[in-house]
Amino acid sequence: MTTVPKGFSFAVAAAGFKRADRNDLALIVSDRPCTAAGVFTTNKFQAAPVLVCKRALQKSPSARAVLVNSGQANACTGEEGLANCRATLEMVGKAAGIEPGEILPASTGVIGAQLKMDRWAEAAPKLVANIGQAAPTDAARAIMTTDTFPKLVTRSVELPGGVVNLLGMCKGAGMICPTMATMLGFVICDAEMAPGPWREMLKACADKSFNALTVDGDTSTNDTLLALANGASGVRVEDAKSLRLLKQAMLEVCQELSYRIVQDAEGGTKVAHITVSGAKSPAQAEAAARAIGNSPLVKTALFGCDPNWGRIVCALGRSGAEFDPDAVVLTIGGILVFSQGQPAPVDLDALLAPSMRHQDVEIALDLHAGRGTFTLLASDLTKRYVEINADYRT
Amino acid sequence: MTTVPKGFSFAVAAAGFKRADRNDLALIVSDRPCTAAGVFTTNKFQAAPVLVCKRALQKSPSARAVLVNSGQANACTGEEGLANCRATLEMVGKAAGIEPGEILPASTGVIGAQLKMDRWAEAAPKLVANIGQAAPTDAARAIMTTDTFPKLVTRSVELPGGVVNLLGMCKGAGMICPTMATMLGFVICDAEMAPGPWREMLKACADKSFNALTVDGDTSTNDTLLALANGASGVRVEDAKSLRLLKQAMLEVCQELSYRIVQDAEGGTKVAHITVSGAKSPAQAEAAARAIGNSPLVKTALFGCDPNWGRIVCALGRSGAEFDPDAVVLTIGGILVFSQGQPAPVDLDALLAPSMRHQDVEIALDLHAGRGTFTLLASDLTKRYVEINADYRT
Repeated sequence: MTTVPKGFSFAVAAAGFKRADRNDLALIVSDRPCTAAGVFTTNKFQAAPVLVCKRALQKSPSARAVLVNSGQANACTGEEGLANCRATLEMVGKAAGIEPGEILPASTGVIGAQLKMDRWAEAAPKLVANIGQAAPTDAARAIMTTDTFPKLVTRSVELPGGVVNLLGMCKGAGMICPTMATMLGFVICDAEMAPGPWREMLKACADKSFNALTVDGDTSTNDTLLALANGASGVRVEDAKSLRLLKQAMLEVCQELSYRIVQDAEGGTKVAHITVSGAKSPAQAEAAARAIGNSPLVKTALFGCDPNWGRIVCALGRSGAEFDPDAVVLTIGGILVFSQGQPAPVDLDALLAPSMRHQDVEIALDLHAGRGTFTLLASDLTKRYVEINADYRT
Repeated sequence: MTTVPKGFSFAVAAAGFKRADRNDLALIVSDRPCTAAGVFTTNKFQAAPVLVCKRALQKSPSARAVLVNSGQANACTGEEGLANCRATLEMVGKAAGIEPGEILPASTGVIGAQLKMDRWAEAAPKLVANIGQAAPTDAARAIMTTDTFPKLVTRSVELPGGVVNLLGMCKGAGMICPTMATMLGFVICDAEMAPGPWREMLKACADKSFNALTVDGDTSTNDTLLALANGASGVRVEDAKSLRLLKQAMLEVCQELSYRIVQDAEGGTKVAHITVSGAKSPAQAEAAARAIGNSPLVKTALFGCDPNWGRIVCALGRSGAEFDPDAVVLTIGGILVFSQGQPAPVDLDALLAPSMRHQDVEIALDLHAGRGTFTLLASDLTKRYVEINADYRT
């Protein structure tokens, strides 16, 4: 049994940014101030809510609420976009009795359009009136765009000082290739945390979860991962053992959410687990795994359940990783496919067919050039992905 | 009027590597020794014919013939693949009375399968018997794989010493993102050329043509561009003016062939001309253009004729190029779309709609950070691309 972290409430509302018939605003509110941390996109064009969040967290690592809209990205919108973003925080803050500076904003949607402020003005009071009426699933559903299911994970962990509860939610199905953060993700927790350890914990977990997956190689302008710890459990986490246990629980939450993003990749039917080991450095292992996981040819072969392993080797060969081609060993689903520069002398198509039909496909490459390792989760590339993205705005 | 370069003959044959009903072998033969140059894939896994070609050209920059098969890549096939490749040169050389070391091989097809040597043994005499019977178009057709049309360009150029003739052909529609060469491409010429200038000319032309296009970002194991100059025109090209004129003609041939590759991209419907200027360096301009041209989201928007310019800006923002986001200027089809960090205050959807409906879409970005420039040709990403590549081997 897991419990929703204590002291947090949820609200949703339909502002009609894109469609009238669905909730596109979500609010997560704590009944007391939280220690807050964030990890953000490395894209040079950073959306207005990303800039506002970063500035707020630099000023003070404390927050009361997270405000999310899933209709408009408010990215590439200049000074007007920044002013609009701040105005939404004022509207909601005023109605809810929270300082606007204590609300962290996040947005997702089409890049380049200014916020529809009239819709915000109408929706803000409705959103605030809904505080405490919505379930966490409602919030996880309200932040969706092309996602086909809400992504919500909870964990309770018993620490020496008592039980603390974690809840994570995220959205993301396309424009997904986080390089320091990802899509929109929110982790709330009722532990009492100091800002430094909380920030470090979040960064470490992000690197092994949201920063280790790809749908289409496109890092978004709006990627935001926020974590709030409000202390409502009465458990202060500061000793090494508690920190380790809580970090492990947070990592599990983040990794489970990451898996669900790839599982729900736009049009996706597969989750490839691509592990590159024996690289000269972790960075080279990562470059190799990303070259494979972003290769349209590898991804379409996955979609076709085609054990066309030559494409994996080909993508590795152009990745920039350093190795001796004759030393590389490739296995798929645990079956030896390629070593000593040539294919295993068996009927690979027949042997690999069952692995290729699974939703989860394990691809492992050992470069025998060092000790660098990286595991990437990657989706396949399907006709449905093209359909979704050729028609996204229309 | 252009003429086929003097002294060259063509042959084709059907070996039945993949399908019985089409020619899959091509031979280009000169009646005298040629100055030869080549540019090859930078993929770490290099196909057997690539290794054999490189070794032959290192030994001597001279050749008599080019032998191409379009059924099997002979890549990732180890020592057996190298021995098989050499055996095919012996078969054809013996039948044609040419030293095997004077024949340059090139292959394309599925990676990882050994050559079907029985089919080669049957087909080699038929191929040689066909010398002089085939037209250049027949050869251009025999080297096709998923290409939908043969790619052949001729040019005659009047030099101070007389007229010389150039003919280029290439194949390529998928696994296309050359980084030093590309797909298979062959340029023949009846000028008399010294090896050094011929090599330099080819490299310079490749960099501005085959090395400046992308279909899917996947650099192949077999990319090969070969150029033969046999001197049959009796015109020796060595003065600066002749070299400049011939280089210009070769560049036109290579650029026209490159355009046709993108035009014939697997499932493609668009050719995007992506020019990034004002970058800190040419390398940064290239990185930015490639990030945009390989972005699945930009490519699907092109397919959907959707002027979703935010995806172009987003891809630029993650490209690694350095610039001030507020200084970037984007135009599409000559229309100002984005500057000073925000969209032009006009009805962009209406203004851009006609440009997006063209086959050729001009995308220009000025980063205002330096003088680096790069132009990339890129295809779109379509449902048909996914279909072709999910089913390629079956």
